[in-house]
Amino acid sequence: MASDAQQACFEAGIKFGSLYHQFAGTPVSPSSARSLEAAMAESIENQPHCESVDVTIRDDRVADAIDHENGYTELTGSLMDVEMRIEYEGVTVRTRMEMENGYPLMKLVEVIDDGESRSADPAQSGDGDPNA
Amino acid sequence: MASDAQQACFEAGIKFGSLYHQFAGTPVSPSSARSLEAAMAESIENQPHCESVDVTIRDDRVADAIDHENGYTELTGSLMDVEMRIEYEGVTVRTRMEMENGYPLMKLVEVIDDGESRSADPAQSGDGDPNA
Amino acid sequence: MASDAQQACFEAGIKFGSLYHQFAGTPVSPSSARSLEAAMAESIENQPHCESVDVTIRDDRVADAIDHENGYTELTGSLMDVEMRIEYEGVTVRTRMEMENGYPLMKLVEVIDDGESRSADPAQSGDGDPNA
Amino acid sequence: MASDAQQACFEAGIKFGSLYHQFAGTPVSPSSARSLEAAMAESIENQPHCESVDVTIRDDRVADAIDHENGYTELTGSLMDVEMRIEYEGVTVRTRMEMENGYPLMKLVEVIDDGESRSADPAQSGDGDPNA
Repeated sequence: MASDAQQACFEAGIKFGSLYHQFAGTPVSPSSARSLEAAMAESIENQPHCESVDVTIRDDRVADAIDHENGYTELTGSLMDVEMRIEYEGVTVRTRMEMENGYPLMKLVEVIDDGESRSADPAQSGDGDPNA
Repeated sequence: MASDAQQACFEAGIKFGSLYHQFAGTPVSPSSARSLEAAMAESIENQPHCESVDVTIRDDRVADAIDHENGYTELTGSLMDVEMRIEYEGVTVRTRMEMENGYPLMKLVEVIDDGESRSADPAQSGDGDPNA
Repeated sequence: MASDAQQACFEAGIKFGSLYHQFAGTPVSPSSARSLEAAMAESIENQPHCESVDVTIRDDRVADAIDHENGYTELTGSLMDVEMRIEYEGVTVRTRMEMENGYPLMKLVEVIDDGESRSADPAQSGDGDPNA
Repeated sequence: MASDAQQACFEAGIKFGSLYHQFAGTPVSPSSARSLEAAMAESIENQPHCESVDVTIRDDRVADAIDHENGYTELTGSLMDVEMRIEYEGVTVRTRMEMENGYPLMKLVEVIDDGESRSADPAQSGDGDPNA
């Protein structure tokens, strides 16, 4: 069967896709950004195995994106940073979303499985174990 | 051209459709409902001519809708009451959403145009004026 | 009570807000745009009093919006033109969404009430009747 | 670093969360279900590493969910079956969503990594290797 670490990474991906696509398009301004950050985090933390969600909407980017008189814009991935921690059957997965080359890239930062941390460390890439 | 009152009612409808379909599906539990209410109201209040939005998520209905172990459900119209006030060119429109016969009905409660209130008053229904 | 024409305009606004916020954020490319147009129109046509919806996603704008290697972007109001026709108690409302000054403006094009068309005609603007 | 298989599972989860929360709440009826299925599949197939998406909206469940005169309901996980295939750096991940105990459960069906299939096979559950 799929390993617990693989299942944990799958669960982590679900939370990110959910957060992004549930809230994409939400009207936002610097004055409403704090309430939206809080709601996004608390709603996704309801999902199974989701231990913590941190959403930071960047007010400077929101202000830059407001290009009409109406004083607001619509939430996209480019306006926020997101971090999450998922726990599944003893595996901890940490994830982050940040802009890279014009694309809001969702990244696996770390997969901690039974104490063995698999972090973003290129040195581990050539060990032959298909699970390393 | 379309009257200011007609335009105001159009604007009011846009806010309701936006609120409903932006947030439908958001994971919600009694513990996360307050933050979601606040974010829904503040985000839609960003929209043009939207003076106030009041969202009450009914914790009892949320609790009833939770039918699995995961402890949350997804927001639908049946779980909340919403009121809004829109102001457009001197016209005030008040609206409300509440459940009626299994359907989350969005209603025009009152259209106040230049001081003339057109409320939900059956007595006015037979006056022949197509605009009354 | 609110006039049938006002109610019809309210209904028309609900459809627009629904369409926009339900589909904002949907991944889209020129190759997937046709299926999305069809689904957007057919889904909103389910809503009460909604007689027809026409969605045109502009492939050129989608292509311009694709600014990374992944070959797709996310649907926003700036990428499409939308027209709708709503019928309520003998009143026909025609609406359109198009970009104006960087904002996807939703417009009442025409309100036809009992044969009296109230189109976007500046000549009617000074007639004193608060409902004209 | 996180293994390719773990990254592939993460990618697979993102697609599922995206599909579910982008389209939850979409008005649907048996007559509009086919266009929605097609649009959901084609839009998510735009996402990186997503090779195929299959959405089946169950007309019988949609019809059952329609509990008012308006002839439509709003899409939820309970109304559809979804299967996906993700390919990432030589790893194939197959996933499925189906209802289990009132919850739309998203499952990893199979993770094929360098020819070694890790399927839902209970016989492998006691092998002691935390990654098996």
